[in-house]
Amino acid sequence: MKIDGVAYRSVWLDDDGWSVCILDQTKLPWSLEVLRLTTCDAAAWAIKSMQTRGAPLIGAVAAYGLCLALRADASTDAMERDAALINATRPTAVNLRWALDRMLTRLRNTPASERVSVAYAEAALIADEDAAQNQAIGRHGLPLIEAAIRPGRPVNVLTHCNAGWLATVDWGTALSPIYTAFNAGIDLHVWVDETRPRNQGAALTAWELGKHGVPHTVVADNAGGHFMQHGMVDLVIVGADRVSRNGDAANKIGTYLKALAAQDNGVPFWVAMPSTTIDWALSDGVADIPIEERPAAEVTEMTGRLADGSIATVRIVAEASPAANPAFDVTPSRLVTGLITERGRCAATAEGLLGLFPERR
Amino acid sequence: MKIDGVAYRSVWLDDDGWSVCILDQTKLPWSLEVLRLTTCDAAAWAIKSMQTRGAPLIGAVAAYGLCLALRADASTDAMERDAALINATRPTAVNLRWALDRMLTRLRNTPASERVSVAYAEAALIADEDAAQNQAIGRHGLPLIEAAIRPGRPVNVLTHCNAGWLATVDWGTALSPIYTAFNAGIDLHVWVDETRPRNQGAALTAWELGKHGVPHTVVADNAGGHFMQHGMVDLVIVGADRVSRNGDAANKIGTYLKALAAQDNGVPFWVAMPSTTIDWALSDGVADIPIEERPAAEVTEMTGRLADGSIATVRIVAEASPAANPAFDVTPSRLVTGLITERGRCAATAEGLLGLFPERR
Repeated sequence: MKIDGVAYRSVWLDDDGWSVCILDQTKLPWSLEVLRLTTCDAAAWAIKSMQTRGAPLIGAVAAYGLCLALRADASTDAMERDAALINATRPTAVNLRWALDRMLTRLRNTPASERVSVAYAEAALIADEDAAQNQAIGRHGLPLIEAAIRPGRPVNVLTHCNAGWLATVDWGTALSPIYTAFNAGIDLHVWVDETRPRNQGAALTAWELGKHGVPHTVVADNAGGHFMQHGMVDLVIVGADRVSRNGDAANKIGTYLKALAAQDNGVPFWVAMPSTTIDWALSDGVADIPIEERPAAEVTEMTGRLADGSIATVRIVAEASPAANPAFDVTPSRLVTGLITERGRCAATAEGLLGLFPERR
Repeated sequence: MKIDGVAYRSVWLDDDGWSVCILDQTKLPWSLEVLRLTTCDAAAWAIKSMQTRGAPLIGAVAAYGLCLALRADASTDAMERDAALINATRPTAVNLRWALDRMLTRLRNTPASERVSVAYAEAALIADEDAAQNQAIGRHGLPLIEAAIRPGRPVNVLTHCNAGWLATVDWGTALSPIYTAFNAGIDLHVWVDETRPRNQGAALTAWELGKHGVPHTVVADNAGGHFMQHGMVDLVIVGADRVSRNGDAANKIGTYLKALAAQDNGVPFWVAMPSTTIDWALSDGVADIPIEERPAAEVTEMTGRLADGSIATVRIVAEASPAANPAFDVTPSRLVTGLITERGRCAATAEGLLGLFPERR
């Protein structure tokens, strides 16, 4: 997608042909900074510290991180160790493990001397496939937005967190149908949940929608239920970090609350994700998807821009008070109207998913 | 209640016997500053700007504001005009109108020459009654917490916004049962919703619980559903800004989402409020309670403490993005387990309320 008219992906190779470039998403929306990763450790830290984030994107960056690891040591022992190191950075998104498993499957039977070039080729495939899958999600999601068109008013879509192109290699998941509809000239407006505590909505979704020209309004995470009660939301589309075989969807903390409000008000609630986000081994997402606990400082502090333009961090919680910070919650499939994948839409059930992915039966 | 061992109320008369003192709640939790109000305009601004806030408390401050107005001009015309000015500061909490109506009823048949002294006496009654009513709410709420006691773990109560002593003249509404239980030696722990966008939970509830020694943890507003899914919340107690005759409860934006999560997980959801918060004229709270729209800057900016101890405001939303800020939502009575009033607990229905307040039949 474009930033001020210039096409970007969220991960790419530098002109040197091997170092890995990402946008430092901890600096957005205030400055657009490219980070050049040259070591496996740097890639792992970029994922762990959320300089790069979003379930599909961290899969692609993990794959490239393994390429960097192999440049330093292409032995099997090192490869397995470095893959485990990258895999340990974040627990919830399954794309991370999926991408590393795919890389290792390809590389274990490759001679060490050829591993670097094979790895870069496989990582490039993973990235290209993610972009293509997300573009397909946009096509399959478009009819949902078209169905909500009413004369004289925009289609109001609510989204939580950032499942835009910044969360993927390109296009985004939840935002891909929105970009597709906007590009097709549909009059729409996006309610952007701020998404505390890391503010991915206010900082990233608002930024990328703004750069693309999509009308939107940032709201506190608390507000969506009120808007749904009053007919101001036509549909909800969110991304996912892991979807279980039966359609339970782990996504950014707070997603479950919006799904409850959608159900209570008859608002369609869709989860958009490439099939790499599906964990076919899990059949009870609420019980079994591991939920990352992140640092309390993400709740107790807030970073933003002072009036003089400099970036500063302020404490926002009473001095002596502790905080807890579960980063994800799981929306039970019964609350999900349906899933939007690269192969089409389906019910949030095992039968629905297996209908689109019969090879998983 | 006490701050570092010193007893405070949230509104009181200065030693001069007429000027009205409040704690400036926009300065908490960073500094404890007493504002001395000497004019009606200052009182109105204190309410509008949320230097003082909380449905029961703004009723008491409004009453004292009318006292200040009468000191300047005790004529009937001025009294009616100044009462209307104060009443227009905030639309959602009904206590504001209730307190002013009570004052005017008392004062309209009082000769202008006696109005000032009569007004101060009536305002003092309103304040004292509020403190006593809230203490009674604590007694009536206590059995709910006692019923949740399990060996070897604290009772986990979740609350949203600040319905503590800072929101009332003393004791609080939702926090009154918590203080009562804590004072009785019950092992309990409070999940404190941050309560974006004004952070009354992180800034006020956490502060007052901390000053009283009550164990608590601040969490993002997004987290409560996840905790309820995993058995980490025994009951929810919130306050209210207006409760309709049938038990619909307007409270800080986001309350509705917690009520939905409580219902989905079988967690009791109680609303605590003095009867001054009941709007007996309204029978459909969702449709008819006016919802205040507050400034977008409350969403786009955040104030806190820099590392050097100074207070600063940072922008936290992408530069060009607009924001919307509805300050309250309405939880339908069907999601409310029951109401806790100064006369006892009841179902969130007209019959339930009329059982406790038969004079309203």
